[in-house]
Amino acid sequence: MHTLSQLPETCKAGVVSKHGPDFELNIEHVPVPQPGPDQILIKLNVTGLCYSDIHYMLEDLPLPRMRDYDVSSPGHEGAGVVVAVGQDVKGWKIGDRAEVAPTWDTCMSCELCATDLECHCSQAVPTGLKVSGTYQQYITSPARYASRIPDNVDDCAAGPIMCSGSTMFRAIRESNLSVGQWAVFIGAGGGVGHMGIQIAKAMGMRIIGIDAGSEKEKICLSLGCEAFIDFTKSKNLCDDVRTIADGKGAHGVFVVASAPAGYKVAPRMLRIGGVVVCVGMPPSVIGSLTGSRQDTAHALSMAARGLLRPIYEHHDIDELPSAVQKLRQGRVNGRCVVMF
Amino acid sequence: MHTLSQLPETCKAGVVSKHGPDFELNIEHVPVPQPGPDQILIKLNVTGLCYSDIHYMLEDLPLPRMRDYDVSSPGHEGAGVVVAVGQDVKGWKIGDRAEVAPTWDTCMSCELCATDLECHCSQAVPTGLKVSGTYQQYITSPARYASRIPDNVDDCAAGPIMCSGSTMFRAIRESNLSVGQWAVFIGAGGGVGHMGIQIAKAMGMRIIGIDAGSEKEKICLSLGCEAFIDFTKSKNLCDDVRTIADGKGAHGVFVVASAPAGYKVAPRMLRIGGVVVCVGMPPSVIGSLTGSRQDTAHALSMAARGLLRPIYEHHDIDELPSAVQKLRQGRVNGRCVVMF
Amino acid sequence: MHTLSQLPETCKAGVVSKHGPDFELNIEHVPVPQPGPDQILIKLNVTGLCYSDIHYMLEDLPLPRMRDYDVSSPGHEGAGVVVAVGQDVKGWKIGDRAEVAPTWDTCMSCELCATDLECHCSQAVPTGLKVSGTYQQYITSPARYASRIPDNVDDCAAGPIMCSGSTMFRAIRESNLSVGQWAVFIGAGGGVGHMGIQIAKAMGMRIIGIDAGSEKEKICLSLGCEAFIDFTKSKNLCDDVRTIADGKGAHGVFVVASAPAGYKVAPRMLRIGGVVVCVGMPPSVIGSLTGSRQDTAHALSMAARGLLRPIYEHHDIDELPSAVQKLRQGRVNGRCVVMF
Amino acid sequence: MHTLSQLPETCKAGVVSKHGPDFELNIEHVPVPQPGPDQILIKLNVTGLCYSDIHYMLEDLPLPRMRDYDVSSPGHEGAGVVVAVGQDVKGWKIGDRAEVAPTWDTCMSCELCATDLECHCSQAVPTGLKVSGTYQQYITSPARYASRIPDNVDDCAAGPIMCSGSTMFRAIRESNLSVGQWAVFIGAGGGVGHMGIQIAKAMGMRIIGIDAGSEKEKICLSLGCEAFIDFTKSKNLCDDVRTIADGKGAHGVFVVASAPAGYKVAPRMLRIGGVVVCVGMPPSVIGSLTGSRQDTAHALSMAARGLLRPIYEHHDIDELPSAVQKLRQGRVNGRCVVMF
Repeated sequence: MHTLSQLPETCKAGVVSKHGPDFELNIEHVPVPQPGPDQILIKLNVTGLCYSDIHYMLEDLPLPRMRDYDVSSPGHEGAGVVVAVGQDVKGWKIGDRAEVAPTWDTCMSCELCATDLECHCSQAVPTGLKVSGTYQQYITSPARYASRIPDNVDDCAAGPIMCSGSTMFRAIRESNLSVGQWAVFIGAGGGVGHMGIQIAKAMGMRIIGIDAGSEKEKICLSLGCEAFIDFTKSKNLCDDVRTIADGKGAHGVFVVASAPAGYKVAPRMLRIGGVVVCVGMPPSVIGSLTGSRQDTAHALSMAARGLLRPIYEHHDIDELPSAVQKLRQGRVNGRCVVMF
Repeated sequence: MHTLSQLPETCKAGVVSKHGPDFELNIEHVPVPQPGPDQILIKLNVTGLCYSDIHYMLEDLPLPRMRDYDVSSPGHEGAGVVVAVGQDVKGWKIGDRAEVAPTWDTCMSCELCATDLECHCSQAVPTGLKVSGTYQQYITSPARYASRIPDNVDDCAAGPIMCSGSTMFRAIRESNLSVGQWAVFIGAGGGVGHMGIQIAKAMGMRIIGIDAGSEKEKICLSLGCEAFIDFTKSKNLCDDVRTIADGKGAHGVFVVASAPAGYKVAPRMLRIGGVVVCVGMPPSVIGSLTGSRQDTAHALSMAARGLLRPIYEHHDIDELPSAVQKLRQGRVNGRCVVMF
Repeated sequence: MHTLSQLPETCKAGVVSKHGPDFELNIEHVPVPQPGPDQILIKLNVTGLCYSDIHYMLEDLPLPRMRDYDVSSPGHEGAGVVVAVGQDVKGWKIGDRAEVAPTWDTCMSCELCATDLECHCSQAVPTGLKVSGTYQQYITSPARYASRIPDNVDDCAAGPIMCSGSTMFRAIRESNLSVGQWAVFIGAGGGVGHMGIQIAKAMGMRIIGIDAGSEKEKICLSLGCEAFIDFTKSKNLCDDVRTIADGKGAHGVFVVASAPAGYKVAPRMLRIGGVVVCVGMPPSVIGSLTGSRQDTAHALSMAARGLLRPIYEHHDIDELPSAVQKLRQGRVNGRCVVMF
Repeated sequence: MHTLSQLPETCKAGVVSKHGPDFELNIEHVPVPQPGPDQILIKLNVTGLCYSDIHYMLEDLPLPRMRDYDVSSPGHEGAGVVVAVGQDVKGWKIGDRAEVAPTWDTCMSCELCATDLECHCSQAVPTGLKVSGTYQQYITSPARYASRIPDNVDDCAAGPIMCSGSTMFRAIRESNLSVGQWAVFIGAGGGVGHMGIQIAKAMGMRIIGIDAGSEKEKICLSLGCEAFIDFTKSKNLCDDVRTIADGKGAHGVFVVASAPAGYKVAPRMLRIGGVVVCVGMPPSVIGSLTGSRQDTAHALSMAARGLLRPIYEHHDIDELPSAVQKLRQGRVNGRCVVMF
């Protein structure tokens, strides 16, 4: 192990002495940890705070509990500098800028890890929940999972970008929206939403921000929204969006605010073919109406090759009225065809 | 106009004489229509019946009304043969096999028509709702929008394929599911679902059918389902699906049945990254959790180029407990970072 | 037909009186055409010139010939205003701004027309080749195929955008490149390339322009290139690109210049996974090396289900040297496996 | 470390005693290696042979050399059973079936490793080139990179599937071809091609195999090709493909054979919009012709928002002939527009 010579024995940390609704968090001195053979030790300059930290201390969500993992410091937005390097580590050296993400490590060998879904790996270790988090100044990280901080990004910016910036980048990427398309952000002026505006802007989208208050409005417009709708003042959010977005509605709506009201109105803001992206919600739901001419051509072609065979019952044209009744009563097996 | 010499003056048709909850449909003789200069006249051999026809006659949905368009015959699954060709028509001749789809015509020049979403064109004319449908034996069609029936597909098969076959082809295409992935069909044994099984099977998916009764089970298994779950007997549909699908859940669930229960259970049948496809529902909803390492790298890179700037407030490490309280109380603008 | 009252009987046009290597083009007065029932008549304010026009007059490419279609005016970048409207036309009125694209009309019903590839429709009518082009001031257009000119786009800009702007938009869309990725344009300062820079810039890409001369350099840098390489001065274009693009190479290279040299160097400018887009060349070529772990998992899973069965011959471990010789001599059927 | 008690001290291996054009490979006894803390030791039952092994021994390609890594056994298609497990390994136990792929390990933290391109990681270790390969019966593997062999796949099948099966799965996945589309395999009957036929078949494609000889023909047709073309007998391969594939050409051509002739003919076998996939060649080349109406609409919309500004010079209509000459001589900056 290579170590900076002057490593202290203890460091400051925000330590949870009591969990639950009236949790207690105090600044204490804790031992500086030693990195394992494939780990690095990072001396953090800053940690971001995230509402997830509070959930972890409150124990108000159906999640594993810090206390069961003997973890006393939450936090997952830490940026600093490498001060020790385990003996098997390649590619990191003392003095490199590094940071720790919301996920501390994953198995690297399951289907999820192999397909860019590694955050959902069943062996993923959430930072500050199953392992000590960034409220503690010195923190270890598996070398292979730590992130480098690029030049031009200072430590204060790096922290939030690891969490909410990355989350929004993913959400926008999954939306498949592109240049010139209308994107709505519900909760645009918040910690996550204001990142979304900037990313969408950089990709050439046209952006409508929805939030409350003149301060949020100012943030949204300054970051690149073409329009801002204050939901406390709008008479009809969906009509307002549609009016702005060519009279047709948005191509995409990102629901960033966690209030359920957002999910309800979002689908009605869309034009045909549009998409709602629920940031922070796992399952995807795709709507699909009837097929196009091209879909019909494909389906007919499959039938021609014997791959698609409708099941139906025959009726003569003079039985049409009774066949219609049978269909209405749900007594038809498969489809019903009438011969002229 | 080229016309088959022996065209009759009238033909049989199912004619609606009364609309609404107790609609009346009778077989009558109606005049054979004349095709316009860019239309063909098709003599139908068969028409399929679809529950939409019943909705049109019942007038129980918030749709335009047949009676307002002076349309007396519903129906949109008609297959037959061309018997007259308008003077400007190219590419069709008398004797060609042809059929009419649920959409009779569109504008061909709007954004939707240009992007394979033409069924949603604001000028789309639904067959059997805004123009006479296939319950009438002789029917005109714009030449450019009529479909050819391939050899090897008989008229009885062609009708249902134009409607439910095309719809399922589209839904499966939009799911992006592929060979070896688990697809669940809720309502697998019905008119639409049994088409879905066949298309998914031909693409190499592994299929779980969900429906009720031994007859549906027999259909599903014979068409290629690896497993069938009877929802009247299963104690826990979601657990059953997960058990069958590698203990992880399905890659996709197609909700074909219109009962709301299907939409509720579908998301819980999925593995991570999975997708629910709601057949017959327009808007799409994508879930998105936190970003991957690669998303983080992208977000950091944007920050390095000045395109992504988090807004945050600073606190000293000794203020950490009070900063946490401030965050808990929702009084932080943007993010909150703490300096060690 | 609705017509502006004061339509003249003749208008100015560039008329080709002689085709071939020493073609002759003169300004003459020609009759103003009459729109058909589904056409509009446009009075052009401007026409763009495109090198394709010259090819049409030179007859130096293996294309249909203007003279065989009795067409005397080339040109396909025309912008103006509607002055007459055929009786069956919906959606256009006198006074609307309109323009004609390189494709004048297509069949609207083939597989290509239904899948956003309509320019390649076998019945497509190229403007100025099979029908009179925009070198003539008054020109008819099928109403369904004419384009509207948005407010804020003047006629002079509209013409080139219909041709080279649209072409570049398509090429960039097909590349699937996205924000933050490096795009190289070979021929960046030309008529097509300078459009590409702007579109890629609006989508957030990082752009390297390659062309010759200080004037092109000035254009490229002013439109948003991060770097410009003068191919008359560079000692090694590929090394230069790689150095600029993170030391790894570009994510995409757009070959806009028609010189074959561009196609040769482009692949060597790429990082792994990168793509060359040949603007103006139809077939796509995808490279593919070995599979990833996930591809292996899929292939194994197919084998487990009996869908993938390697064909191979057995050898004992002691026969390994001879089996290797057999493989080297190309005498193995399928694969060769050795048992320990 | 957990170890099967009866591990031998030595095992059989194919050992290269001399490299180069007249390489020598003999069966010898070599020491059984010890797994590191995060490795497993696999006792192979079989190894596949691959022509790459021969290249490694011949040293006839511009690759790193086995001898420089002190590696004496090539081979990368090994299947067997775990006989020892390093102390830090999770998820593997003695008796598990396991195999080693062409890539033995990667860094797991670069951009390529994070995006399903890990085989191209600059730190990737090719099995049998930079580390002992599967010609040796006992072989170590990083636990995180070893593959499990599913039930129903025997060891002899598993080997080739890890290499050529995985490669073809990837190539077909990257082609984006789907059910009902025509896929041509050039080199269909070989070790890689015959895997491609089976995978494409399972996905519902229609397959044309191209190869030489009646034995290959028999293999191709039995695996699911609809047609076989013997390139030693065909008068025109491209015409033959087009005739079979609806008179339009194939949707995709996979060039599996390494003979350059394949790459030449492949593009001419395609229909419009089709794709050539070169198996084993890294860079991708996309062709792109003119834009569609929708691309034009996008380009115009960008111009309307000031994001796309053509550069052009003005001419009066009476200067049209001289402007055309100027264009022909290449003296126009940007585009050239003519005012009527």
